[in-house]
Amino acid sequence: GLVHIKNPHLEAMDEDVLYHLDLGTKTHNLPAMFGDVKFVCVGGSPNRMRAFAQFMHKELGLQGDGEDLADICAGTDRYAMYRVGPVLSISHGMGIPSVSIMLHELIKLLHHARCRDVTIIRIGTSGGLGVEPGSVVITDRAVDACFQPRFEQVVLGDVVVRGTDLDGALVEELLACSKAVPDFPTLVGHTMCTYDFYEGQGRLDGALCSFSNEKKLEYLKRAHDAGVRNIEMESTAFAALCGLCGLRGECCPSCG
Amino acid sequence: GLVHIKNPHLEAMDEDVLYHLDLGTKTHNLPAMFGDVKFVCVGGSPNRMRAFAQFMHKELGLQGDGEDLADICAGTDRYAMYRVGPVLSISHGMGIPSVSIMLHELIKLLHHARCRDVTIIRIGTSGGLGVEPGSVVITDRAVDACFQPRFEQVVLGDVVVRGTDLDGALVEELLACSKAVPDFPTLVGHTMCTYDFYEGQGRLDGALCSFSNEKKLEYLKRAHDAGVRNIEMESTAFAALCGLCGLRGECCPSCG
Repeated sequence: GLVHIKNPHLEAMDEDVLYHLDLGTKTHNLPAMFGDVKFVCVGGSPNRMRAFAQFMHKELGLQGDGEDLADICAGTDRYAMYRVGPVLSISHGMGIPSVSIMLHELIKLLHHARCRDVTIIRIGTSGGLGVEPGSVVITDRAVDACFQPRFEQVVLGDVVVRGTDLDGALVEELLACSKAVPDFPTLVGHTMCTYDFYEGQGRLDGALCSFSNEKKLEYLKRAHDAGVRNIEMESTAFAALCGLCGLRGECCPSCG
Repeated sequence: GLVHIKNPHLEAMDEDVLYHLDLGTKTHNLPAMFGDVKFVCVGGSPNRMRAFAQFMHKELGLQGDGEDLADICAGTDRYAMYRVGPVLSISHGMGIPSVSIMLHELIKLLHHARCRDVTIIRIGTSGGLGVEPGSVVITDRAVDACFQPRFEQVVLGDVVVRGTDLDGALVEELLACSKAVPDFPTLVGHTMCTYDFYEGQGRLDGALCSFSNEKKLEYLKRAHDAGVRNIEMESTAFAALCGLCGLRGECCPSCG
């Protein structure tokens, strides 16, 4: 149930500084602070992840009103992190590079803290594709802009292709949870992840747009035919990193 | 001296909402708010861009101490924006996707506000390569992880390759400015832009690392031999977007 750090250099390091979280193995007692964390929920916006932590505070029936939750990463403005019982709520900014930095440091944090059986869920927002607004799409497969289940990572100038499998059992569990809530439109589908919000997702209102409305609709129809039900900017990197490090992960953002 | 919007759809739109800046053509008088802006300075961290705005406030000899500068994008936590005289100071988060969203909306803002002769400069931080810590690298060429001056943008699933030329005259101007300041180590060089901070930049301390210290040094030496003097995560997209939209732009982050 431990996360896997696939880095032989880490053991030899005297100190590990998680720069972008403003935490470290010499400055913080990570096992005491995080050892019993079981769930990590992540999303782009720091304000929303604070609001989510406050919501969880109420849901878990914890003492106080949760209004004074402290940002654990207050020493940096790169990310925000809140802890409520066994739940960590962390912001990741927008896009693959931003979520990747956070995940590298979060995975090392869970390792140093010797956490066990942690589940990570990406909440936050996405654009729906042929689904009712407000729906939640539980991702069964994260795909790239060519609808392929892969994440291309450049390592020292070479492209390494990684799989984007998510935890099938977790998909079923989350779907079962959604059914217990009335009027909560939820479906399982593929999630497309792009590097760009405007041209990459077929928007007609960016500073640049070289395609017609017809070409846009044709592309989105091809995506829908390939099983894509929502579009966002983090899922392939999220799935690849969680998969490689043995972290049970799932994306289920709501659709705007 | 106007920016070029290369999007034929924009003219036909009744309203343009700059979602991630929390501004819009119907909700805000953009020409009145921004029409006389001449410089835009951008960097990753919202706190640092606020501190930079306060610094500019003092440098420009404006009234008051600048402590109460209001965030123009206070309605959203995606980016922060401050205005001081003719200078806008905006945060862009980390990585190409995040800076791209901001630039699309900023370029439309400058267009709607009918700004003329605007210069945009990326400040912020980078990792130096064989340069004195604290040096400022003025980018003469933004290159990708293979040391090529190109930015690959996926448009509706197809890869479009764009140039990353920056303004040569602006490089000379900035270098001349730096020489007017004593003890201000500044050089001109290529800036490498990666999608990943850990594996992409040859770091040995990520959650994943599959290469040896020797391979890392070999890659960084090849980068140095190719003219790279610093590494960051935004410059190729910044150069490509500014170039296409006729915005005079330059990167000159300091090296950590």
